[in-house]
Amino acid sequence: MTCEISRGYDVSLVRGVLSPRNRALADSLGHRRALVVTDPTVEAIHGADLRTYLGGLPNDVDVHVTQLAEGDKSIGSVLAVCEAAQRHGIGRRDLLVAFGGGVCCDVVSLAASLIRRGVPYVCLPTTLVAQIDAGIGLKGGVNFGGSKNYLGCFTPPQAVLVDPTFLLTVPEAELRGGISEIVKMALVRDRRLFDQLLDVGPELLASGFSRPATTGEAVIARAVQLMLDELSRNCYEEGRLDRLVDFGHTFSGRLEELSAYTLRHGEAVAVDMALSSAIAVELGLLGEADLHRILSALLALGLPVRSPLATPATLMEAMRAVCLHRDGALNLVVPTTVGEATFVRRLEDVPLHALTAAVSRVAAAAANTPAVSRLDDKPLPAPRDVIDLRDRLPAARNSSSSR
Amino acid sequence: MTCEISRGYDVSLVRGVLSPRNRALADSLGHRRALVVTDPTVEAIHGADLRTYLGGLPNDVDVHVTQLAEGDKSIGSVLAVCEAAQRHGIGRRDLLVAFGGGVCCDVVSLAASLIRRGVPYVCLPTTLVAQIDAGIGLKGGVNFGGSKNYLGCFTPPQAVLVDPTFLLTVPEAELRGGISEIVKMALVRDRRLFDQLLDVGPELLASGFSRPATTGEAVIARAVQLMLDELSRNCYEEGRLDRLVDFGHTFSGRLEELSAYTLRHGEAVAVDMALSSAIAVELGLLGEADLHRILSALLALGLPVRSPLATPATLMEAMRAVCLHRDGALNLVVPTTVGEATFVRRLEDVPLHALTAAVSRVAAAAANTPAVSRLDDKPLPAPRDVIDLRDRLPAARNSSSSR
Repeated sequence: MTCEISRGYDVSLVRGVLSPRNRALADSLGHRRALVVTDPTVEAIHGADLRTYLGGLPNDVDVHVTQLAEGDKSIGSVLAVCEAAQRHGIGRRDLLVAFGGGVCCDVVSLAASLIRRGVPYVCLPTTLVAQIDAGIGLKGGVNFGGSKNYLGCFTPPQAVLVDPTFLLTVPEAELRGGISEIVKMALVRDRRLFDQLLDVGPELLASGFSRPATTGEAVIARAVQLMLDELSRNCYEEGRLDRLVDFGHTFSGRLEELSAYTLRHGEAVAVDMALSSAIAVELGLLGEADLHRILSALLALGLPVRSPLATPATLMEAMRAVCLHRDGALNLVVPTTVGEATFVRRLEDVPLHALTAAVSRVAAAAANTPAVSRLDDKPLPAPRDVIDLRDRLPAARNSSSSR
Repeated sequence: MTCEISRGYDVSLVRGVLSPRNRALADSLGHRRALVVTDPTVEAIHGADLRTYLGGLPNDVDVHVTQLAEGDKSIGSVLAVCEAAQRHGIGRRDLLVAFGGGVCCDVVSLAASLIRRGVPYVCLPTTLVAQIDAGIGLKGGVNFGGSKNYLGCFTPPQAVLVDPTFLLTVPEAELRGGISEIVKMALVRDRRLFDQLLDVGPELLASGFSRPATTGEAVIARAVQLMLDELSRNCYEEGRLDRLVDFGHTFSGRLEELSAYTLRHGEAVAVDMALSSAIAVELGLLGEADLHRILSALLALGLPVRSPLATPATLMEAMRAVCLHRDGALNLVVPTTVGEATFVRRLEDVPLHALTAAVSRVAAAAANTPAVSRLDDKPLPAPRDVIDLRDRLPAARNSSSSR
């Protein structure tokens, strides 16, 4: 018995996707029934535009508004979407639409994969991280039993419509989480993009990716292209489980879990990239100068490079957990220079003393490194290199218990 | 972005799969960690053999025993399996094993598709329906919000090991549910198999498929082959949603839902086949003589052909619900003669008066038809043509509330 399937989809850059004359979303919907899933924040900002747009279409569309913070990335949220789809009479070829950030795309992807064993879905990512990472791939997932993304699916969307004008309303702190994933792609694949981020990153962050003119879109387009490129090598992660896009994603999941998801994903990825790079120095795979360029870049973009949660013992525990997810292999992605990377294959290759040394190395570097750009002309950002979680936890608890 | 995947698996007939010298299951496990999922009934009958077998292997295997009746086919059961897998440290390439009937295979298939976005699983189906239908395909599913199989997946197993000796311990009433699915395949694809069932069906049922010698295995092998043949035409049900194996599966789901899953799946399928065949007569697609052969065969095998739940209004409702699942098309499978079938494409093609007439036609035929075999030499079985659910409901409620 042989089971084969091939599914294609496009990721399109569409400015003003909700402006009534724009046909991109209407064309994706066809004349099918649809359920749009979004969160209260996106609803508050774009809900009126969405309803005006949908009002001009012949489709029978319902909108499901629900909390979708990282703490809501649960099977409960997925089942609530399934219930809403059932109530709305979503048929086998009808459509779900994810209108929000990475969590929204993840939850909708998984719900769509489950409903009637799979209904199509379209992503309208509204945050930077969703536009260049979480919302453009085929992976859905939710946290389960304290493990990040323990349950999930590989389910390609029907289409992804990336509207960079949504970023105008995204807070700078959120954009920073997204730019962290762009730094990731740049560090493993594209030195020019890295240099470009150093040049224009702060301005992009301050302007909602609208200045310098056209650069924001170019950066997004390049990051999307690099991501799809990497994904398409092994869409369904068959065979060997090594992926360059897992750079920054070995320790970060555990740090997020330990923070009860109050540490932003992009922040955790930045801390992970810093540590992974320092480990690369310990293992003789990366030069110290490159490590300092990497750390400086992260700091210049206002990203953290260390966290009190990242103790050597925790890092070892995270590596062990990741091995379970990578068929016994560690496959730690480490840069060998800016724009190129390799894999550290085995757990034994990273002994505890290397982790301890790496943590110290980052701490020392972050204390002494001036936050310089490539051209040494960027100001030092407000100190954010160590994150104190204490003032974040209560709010996060409230939001997750409100579900 | 193009996402392609191809997965192959074999369905093997293996006698005595748990006998310590049999390598089939050991070879499927390799040296991976595994979680076997089974229910208390299977555990009581085969648990000791299973543990002896596993005790002889180097693998780290845990056994998860849980209620898995039709009423337990819920997302809750799936998540309980996911929790057990998480506790047992199941890694990305480790293995789940479904050891039980159709519900067990369905639940494990869905759990395996969710855990870490997909871990491999092996099916060891112990009931007839699982061995020739539910346990050999790539569909997992659970009931949700009152809808049968509303949530599910297409996830090919790594392997299916069909051991016909398990049928020796399956009650005759359960075997009858399985033979109903074999009748289904025979009616739409294989007249010879239909005739063979009439010849040997009652003896197979009475002997746990062990007599006449070798015939049981031959019938199972043929049914498996026909099923895989049909599945492989459109594994993932892309494009047009018409499948010959959906014969008997248009009304049956609704009847099962209305019975609170106290009507056995195979019984509901038999009632559906009788009704679909009578509808075919109403629409001029099937001759009356063939209808009577079909009804006689079902009755001769001790299967019901009508149910008080199957009112014309309910049948219409079921057809409407099925259209949502078949992209607006009805695609009702109806036989045109014994061994061949066609599709009634549109809801409008089956008006309410045709349903009313079909229900009456079956009732009249079941009252008057002697339960004859092809050779007119089989005795009349105990009257089972109308199922009274009242004495089944309390027990079923208990078993589903015990979860």
